[in-house]
Amino acid sequence: MEFNETLNNLKNYEAGKPIEELVKDFDFNPKDIIKLASNENPYGCSKKVKQTALENLDKIPLYPDDSMYELKNALAKRFELKDENIIIGAGSDQVISFCIGAKCKQNSKVLMAKTTFAMYEISAKQVGAKILKTPSSEHRISEFEEIYKANPDIAVIFLCLPNNPLGECLSTKDVYLFLEKVSKNTLVIIDGAYQEFASFKDINKKIIPKDLLEKFENVVYLGTFSKAYGMGGLRVGYGLSSKEIINTLHKLRPPFNITSLSLACACTALEDEAFIQQTLVKNFEEMEKYEEFLSKNRINFTPSYANFMTINFSSKYKASEIAKEFLKKGIILRDLRSYGLNSLRITIGDKEQNIKVRENLAKFLTH
Amino acid sequence: MEFNETLNNLKNYEAGKPIEELVKDFDFNPKDIIKLASNENPYGCSKKVKQTALENLDKIPLYPDDSMYELKNALAKRFELKDENIIIGAGSDQVISFCIGAKCKQNSKVLMAKTTFAMYEISAKQVGAKILKTPSSEHRISEFEEIYKANPDIAVIFLCLPNNPLGECLSTKDVYLFLEKVSKNTLVIIDGAYQEFASFKDINKKIIPKDLLEKFENVVYLGTFSKAYGMGGLRVGYGLSSKEIINTLHKLRPPFNITSLSLACACTALEDEAFIQQTLVKNFEEMEKYEEFLSKNRINFTPSYANFMTINFSSKYKASEIAKEFLKKGIILRDLRSYGLNSLRITIGDKEQNIKVRENLAKFLTH
Repeated sequence: MEFNETLNNLKNYEAGKPIEELVKDFDFNPKDIIKLASNENPYGCSKKVKQTALENLDKIPLYPDDSMYELKNALAKRFELKDENIIIGAGSDQVISFCIGAKCKQNSKVLMAKTTFAMYEISAKQVGAKILKTPSSEHRISEFEEIYKANPDIAVIFLCLPNNPLGECLSTKDVYLFLEKVSKNTLVIIDGAYQEFASFKDINKKIIPKDLLEKFENVVYLGTFSKAYGMGGLRVGYGLSSKEIINTLHKLRPPFNITSLSLACACTALEDEAFIQQTLVKNFEEMEKYEEFLSKNRINFTPSYANFMTINFSSKYKASEIAKEFLKKGIILRDLRSYGLNSLRITIGDKEQNIKVRENLAKFLTH
Repeated sequence: MEFNETLNNLKNYEAGKPIEELVKDFDFNPKDIIKLASNENPYGCSKKVKQTALENLDKIPLYPDDSMYELKNALAKRFELKDENIIIGAGSDQVISFCIGAKCKQNSKVLMAKTTFAMYEISAKQVGAKILKTPSSEHRISEFEEIYKANPDIAVIFLCLPNNPLGECLSTKDVYLFLEKVSKNTLVIIDGAYQEFASFKDINKKIIPKDLLEKFENVVYLGTFSKAYGMGGLRVGYGLSSKEIINTLHKLRPPFNITSLSLACACTALEDEAFIQQTLVKNFEEMEKYEEFLSKNRINFTPSYANFMTINFSSKYKASEIAKEFLKKGIILRDLRSYGLNSLRITIGDKEQNIKVRENLAKFLTH
């Protein structure tokens, strides 16, 4: 059977190895496995979220409320926006695919940093768009400007703030200065999947969606419940933008794209700010211990504004080999080989998990 | 901002009015509302499914197993197929969109019955495909053959067995005779969302996926957990096909497209066959009572092989008005005006719900 030619160029997203697979491969007890590969919240989710799931089991047989009235209302309140500025996705990934679907077709141009969230490229290639990348791995706004100047017909630009998988974060000031130079016909996607972390660490990195949308009509801000909120298993993300853009994205949203339980739980998650604050405080306390350890052991790392750190190895070591050694110990980290890097991305876990990671890392690196 | 022109032709799926909306509009107590608009299972889901959700709340913070190993295994066992023959979607709708994405682009031709599941057309139009429809509302295989003969370049054909929203069902024999005449380069989608019902009522309508796939390499069979299994709120559907086609569809599947809880619950649902059997028996017992009532009152209806009935009104009555009267009584039915029909689709509810529907219907029709 013949299929669309655009499919020939597609590669699939490489997910962090799930615990289930490690159990199969190495015969571990699932409870003994430490998974620090997908930037999940090591403290789980708010207890109130679990309670909400429990109280809503009767909703399993019913299709979800497709207007998503309650969740949109809760998000509108949180961000001082209106329902009409909000679209809900099955993870922010799905909102990315709506944006690409609305703006791109065969040979449309899409600009992103050299090393950034893999779904940008995967989504864009699904419609046959052309990918332009900055020369540097990390976001450098001057490189974005230069490429944009040479390609004013770029349809979509992705800025990942902070950037996954490297952890660096552009300052809000630099982002705004760049946005002023971008045509109103270019859609700029500000991916705030880890914004809770960045804005907690450094106020200069904080993006306020209301302010952003008031200043720029051609921007979509992405947020997610999978990271700080600890709900990766429930698949809820959102896009915030002008009424015009949100209306258009809604044309591409499939009905019932979120489960009934996910909708109910996301509303509750927004009510437990204390849980998020605890997560953020502990994340950066634990990150400091990694920084000390890495500096002391002269291991190169990217200063991170998120809930993970990327450590970069000299040619003396192979990150893939080290990742395999960790797997044998029941610890799942993310090998960044598929990004062309000799690096590991480590989600900041809880205190005990991090101690085990550092102990093992010290052992592997002295061998 | 300019968007893709294909979006201009898009209309959104019109979902059954959710209970939440009726509560807002009419100030009903949610418990008093009878929703028979979305073909949900009036007996809910298996108790074991709820128990599984309860036992898996700790999975909320973790991304789902993207290999979907356990669910694919369970489905493979059920259908005597291999994992490689299975793709999981967030509802079978999502598998439809993968099929369209794999085979269609601007001006590709897609063939379907005049009145059938709305998502076929919506999905096809999202990529700019041309829609061809049979002259008759219900599936007539001779009309499919005629249009296909005149358009051998048709990329995708949809057969809905039984058909939503009308309820009729082609016999397996006729489907097979048609498939033999279709080129191996045309993808035929056999939508079995309501197959559990049709094959229970009439063995001649039963599609056996293993047999279907052995005979025809260009077919995708769709199934869902939203109807007989009573899990519409959890969004799980699947596609069964050849390894080649499934591999291609996987290129379009976004990672983590099903929640952790949905995956666990779907596996359990397959284990409780008794629940399904009870659902099927009661469904057709209740349907008989509708048939008696409608015949006695000389109301036209389409004999149905699913868990709903479509009743057709003469010009003396307006289905939309009757639907509104039902809403005022707290009963949500599906007005088929958006399909161009003066008809109502009624999900077969439980005994008490159905009595109330018939009582009200009798009242409205004598006025």
